[in-house]
Amino acid sequence: MDTPTEHSSLHRALVAAVGDERCTTTPEDLAYYGSDRCRGGWPVRPSMVVFPRSIAEVQAVVRACAAFDTAIVPSGGRTGLAGAATATAGEVVLSLEKMRQILAIDPAARTLRCEPGVTLQAVQEAAAAHGLLYPVDYASKGSAQIGGSLATNAGGVKVLRYGLTRDWVLGLKAVLASGACLDLGGALVKNNTGYDLRQLFIGSEGTLGVIVEVTLRLARPPADALVALCAAPDDAAVLALFARLRASDLTLSAFECLDEGCLRHVLVHRGGASPFAEPSPRLVLVEVEVPFPGPAAREHTEAALGDVLGAAAEADEIGDALLAATPAQARGLWALREDISESLHRHTPHKADIALPVARIAEFLAAWRLAVAARLPEIEALCFGHIGDGNLHLNLLRPEGLELPEFLARVHGFDDETYALVQAHGGSISAEHGVGLLKREHLHYTRTPEELAIFRGIKTALDPRGMFNPGKIF
Amino acid sequence: MDTPTEHSSLHRALVAAVGDERCTTTPEDLAYYGSDRCRGGWPVRPSMVVFPRSIAEVQAVVRACAAFDTAIVPSGGRTGLAGAATATAGEVVLSLEKMRQILAIDPAARTLRCEPGVTLQAVQEAAAAHGLLYPVDYASKGSAQIGGSLATNAGGVKVLRYGLTRDWVLGLKAVLASGACLDLGGALVKNNTGYDLRQLFIGSEGTLGVIVEVTLRLARPPADALVALCAAPDDAAVLALFARLRASDLTLSAFECLDEGCLRHVLVHRGGASPFAEPSPRLVLVEVEVPFPGPAAREHTEAALGDVLGAAAEADEIGDALLAATPAQARGLWALREDISESLHRHTPHKADIALPVARIAEFLAAWRLAVAARLPEIEALCFGHIGDGNLHLNLLRPEGLELPEFLARVHGFDDETYALVQAHGGSISAEHGVGLLKREHLHYTRTPEELAIFRGIKTALDPRGMFNPGKIF
Repeated sequence: MDTPTEHSSLHRALVAAVGDERCTTTPEDLAYYGSDRCRGGWPVRPSMVVFPRSIAEVQAVVRACAAFDTAIVPSGGRTGLAGAATATAGEVVLSLEKMRQILAIDPAARTLRCEPGVTLQAVQEAAAAHGLLYPVDYASKGSAQIGGSLATNAGGVKVLRYGLTRDWVLGLKAVLASGACLDLGGALVKNNTGYDLRQLFIGSEGTLGVIVEVTLRLARPPADALVALCAAPDDAAVLALFARLRASDLTLSAFECLDEGCLRHVLVHRGGASPFAEPSPRLVLVEVEVPFPGPAAREHTEAALGDVLGAAAEADEIGDALLAATPAQARGLWALREDISESLHRHTPHKADIALPVARIAEFLAAWRLAVAARLPEIEALCFGHIGDGNLHLNLLRPEGLELPEFLARVHGFDDETYALVQAHGGSISAEHGVGLLKREHLHYTRTPEELAIFRGIKTALDPRGMFNPGKIF
Repeated sequence: MDTPTEHSSLHRALVAAVGDERCTTTPEDLAYYGSDRCRGGWPVRPSMVVFPRSIAEVQAVVRACAAFDTAIVPSGGRTGLAGAATATAGEVVLSLEKMRQILAIDPAARTLRCEPGVTLQAVQEAAAAHGLLYPVDYASKGSAQIGGSLATNAGGVKVLRYGLTRDWVLGLKAVLASGACLDLGGALVKNNTGYDLRQLFIGSEGTLGVIVEVTLRLARPPADALVALCAAPDDAAVLALFARLRASDLTLSAFECLDEGCLRHVLVHRGGASPFAEPSPRLVLVEVEVPFPGPAAREHTEAALGDVLGAAAEADEIGDALLAATPAQARGLWALREDISESLHRHTPHKADIALPVARIAEFLAAWRLAVAARLPEIEALCFGHIGDGNLHLNLLRPEGLELPEFLARVHGFDDETYALVQAHGGSISAEHGVGLLKREHLHYTRTPEELAIFRGIKTALDPRGMFNPGKIF
């Protein structure tokens, strides 16, 4: 695969494909469209950015790049955190942002068909306009595009109840390296006719083709939800509370945990009072659904949640608990969780997005905190995350006075220790953010040589010349 | 790939792998284990049947067969309806029926890990013993094995509410052609590290490897369910009722439709009175879940269902409706649906298991019934199925007096017409039964040459010598 610095013939071909006003090579555009939210220190060097407006134009771009042996980085909202949308070596960035039509909504079938550049938020709003719910939800929804959410199998705050993006994809279309467009369903719930190729594209981080159309399943929204914040003494107590809630007849829609330190940083960052009089080592945000409208279901749910939290308090799993009495209070409790990332930003946190078997979280965290204390004693280590999914976001904060390069050298040096502990506890080095460029060298902690060999075989079957997003994942 | 008639060296190797008492070549065993419930008229000619009891023994069997260049047919409960578990050419049948341990249940994580030979019913019962539900459900559950249910991505009567088997697989282990055992998760909800290889094995009909361990997700069972039977004048009315139910706040767990003729055959076969005084062209079985225990939720659900059915009657979508007042009455209404296959058996029905976009069902059925009337005027055509999933089971019944060979020649000749209509209406030639040997030659009605080329590439990546289940699917 070439990495040309001059593209005059290719440029002409791409202009022919999408029109002059849909091609750009300005340094600002190359820098802006050439990377995502991952600051990995890689060079950002696309050769051009193109903005096709239709499947036919995507096909024309792919055929032109194939003819000139130039690689393509498919590009959505570039909210990814693993560098999967970064162009480092003269690739053409194929931006889907001009393909942003909602194409159809079928309320009886509960499906929504759209172009890939539609934002997650626009999908949610279009579903809501029909009284339906697209339940995948995460903070960057205003920018994240649905094509990218498929390519990364995005997770978010409702996975415990609704699963990952994969669970909501009924069909997709993808343009292959040959320029052919594969139509992988969307109108059918059932289609047992061979290998499910949809699934390969979901989570493939742009390495197999360009997702050019998506059909999503929609859900009926819950009538209402109850939100509680609980103070817990330690990780074991948090997990005991989780098991207690799962054994009840409540429909748990979130179970998010944060360290005391996370709360402290949030309050320092944006002000506000601590929700509890006494500090607590762990805080847990619990959300349960009210299954149907009206007071009977709400009262039942409140009583059942009260019973569970009362029993947890009896068993010393929680010290204190707050139940939001109004929607505004519920939003306030959620904000304590949602504001963490922004509040930590000033400390340039080094993050790890890991998954563990839920039953092994406490054991892992004890080992990891010990390792941080031993190897990085002056560095504050914080954990928060979707603990009900086994998904932890580990954060190492830069101390004031420690220069960034020195900090990065130290925390990068610690990554292998973190990932070896993740491996030893049966976990994954990427729960929901993907691999991209960021975790490629650590992939062996989660994937075996046999699996990597199969990855290469699949890549060869779909993209024999390595045209799509080279260097990403493996 | 050889298809040897003598296997003395291979026989010794397989005896060494699993023990003499776990290998058989008796004609009865070869006939019994060499085919499934599909009567396709293919030769049934395995060379041997082996019964490994562990993953290590499966690996030894695969390595022995690889060394002697002999193909393997992985074999579960052989309840399939497409011939995918049929050995036609000297293959070794690798039966998983001795690997039938439930290995672990984790109530808080809501997972069940088991060997592949556990029956669907045993899985359901093990989950129920912990107050949990494995919601995939179909008539052959007492014989069907969980490994086979993954390999065929089995559906059943609760897909509308709970999805297909694919939606409930958290992880699996599979033995590859090399003899290596791939561990594809099970403890993690989230693991975004490259292509999701689990998904390839689900629905692969034994063509990529041997599934040797399964981790399933479990659900919390509904508190209760309400069952109603509705009489509808035509297909359009049935679909209008479906849209009406989906627009309500009811949790619809089944929406099954049957032709009047299906009911007539059931009543002839096993007696009983018609549920309605007047005959009705279509009958719809509706099941809705009661979301939590106690009278409040039941009363709410009954009232909401009553409202929907009342409005449907006002709109002439349904003529009459029966709501089961007791569990026994509910079972009685379900039996009208569940007894259809057995009741049609005496007429040696020629079946097609197809999927359609729900919105195009009425149009398809009108065209199909016209085509049958024109081409097969003396043959009774009946339709029933999971209409809420777009899944229809079409049945052509042999008239008394028409000899079987003549009947088969005529209905097989009609298959192309059926499948061309399915294709023209955007459907699939196999909704849930799979392809196997039965539909291989019709696969082009649903899969394009590009898709088949990718299938071959994936097959090559995982099973380069074509050792697993040759000739199945494509």
